[in-house]
Amino acid sequence: MELKRRGLMYIMSSPSGAGKTTITRALLKNNQDMILSISATTRKRRAGEVHGQDYYFVDTTEFDHMVNDGEMLEYAKVFGNYYGTPRKPVEDALSQGKDVIFDIDWQGTQQIAEIAREDLVTVFILPPSQSALEDRLRKRSRTTLESDTDIRGRMAKASDELSHYTEYDYVIVNQNIDETITKAQLILDVERIKRHRMIGLADFVRGLKNGL
Amino acid sequence: MELKRRGLMYIMSSPSGAGKTTITRALLKNNQDMILSISATTRKRRAGEVHGQDYYFVDTTEFDHMVNDGEMLEYAKVFGNYYGTPRKPVEDALSQGKDVIFDIDWQGTQQIAEIAREDLVTVFILPPSQSALEDRLRKRSRTTLESDTDIRGRMAKASDELSHYTEYDYVIVNQNIDETITKAQLILDVERIKRHRMIGLADFVRGLKNGL
Repeated sequence: MELKRRGLMYIMSSPSGAGKTTITRALLKNNQDMILSISATTRKRRAGEVHGQDYYFVDTTEFDHMVNDGEMLEYAKVFGNYYGTPRKPVEDALSQGKDVIFDIDWQGTQQIAEIAREDLVTVFILPPSQSALEDRLRKRSRTTLESDTDIRGRMAKASDELSHYTEYDYVIVNQNIDETITKAQLILDVERIKRHRMIGLADFVRGLKNGL
Repeated sequence: MELKRRGLMYIMSSPSGAGKTTITRALLKNNQDMILSISATTRKRRAGEVHGQDYYFVDTTEFDHMVNDGEMLEYAKVFGNYYGTPRKPVEDALSQGKDVIFDIDWQGTQQIAEIAREDLVTVFILPPSQSALEDRLRKRSRTTLESDTDIRGRMAKASDELSHYTEYDYVIVNQNIDETITKAQLILDVERIKRHRMIGLADFVRGLKNGL
């Protein structure tokens, strides 16, 4: 008796600086079959970023084309730049029973939830304290030589993001990164065995009922 | 940072003979804080059954009183006898953050889902094969000296129960009892950390946002 299942979309959101990137990388390492959804963006490539790995860097014309041709699962404008999720890699993975992990914000999550709620598992990562959040936001701004306006913008974005935690299936307070990764993995393990993702169950039950 | 949570109702249903009782007992042993919901019934007490442990054995007049006074969370008639879940022990446990495990059929599950869907986690246990199911149904009938009519009734009930698997959150095919218990425990662990069961999250997030 071998039952297959449909893949799931595993969305991790959090305010900047809550540890989301570390968690996403750990999950990808632990789950060889899972793929990372890579966003397309019109934002300029930063030093160290790789096209097709961190983002697909495209210009506004190309981005518009992708949106108009229905090639985006979701998209949004953040700080004057567009970000979007190309549809095809995600749909191919799901139908092959593979899971896809997303590192996107509440705007993208809302849009995907509208079209594919049943395939979605959403996790919101919270920092353990206000000081931890502020430390991370300031440290990040020092390393990238941001202006005061950029820092204020990032803080406003973090505050805005925080207010959307109520829209997520799970909330993890990231007090200890290893425990958080363990929890995120457990959630994935359990969500994978949910009834509505199983394929072939109707036939299996019909077999059980034969002769009763 | 200490967040509390609301308890959950963990419902295990299955056709007779799929191993549900063994799984329920193992979960109660592993989770000291969890309580078992004990049904009230008008069915006659069998040898070895203990009042207040296996069932609350009541007469039809008393059962009717409980229903009319709103003391039943759900009730149903099965094989000419009434079965119901007393409401108070369940509500007390949930508000104290304790989980309650239920060994009830699809009729009870549907009724509880109507009034408390958010507090509910439902698992359907399937036997691994038709022969395993039939073996268990026949073995049980031999030990309790049932008539042919009783056996046919039990089989019809099993077939009826099987057709309701689609109404459950999780389906576990019980191929190996230890693996099944592990899965049932994982489901419990993950459902416990769902966002909507957490108490105090709004205050915690308000604290994070102060000063941003």
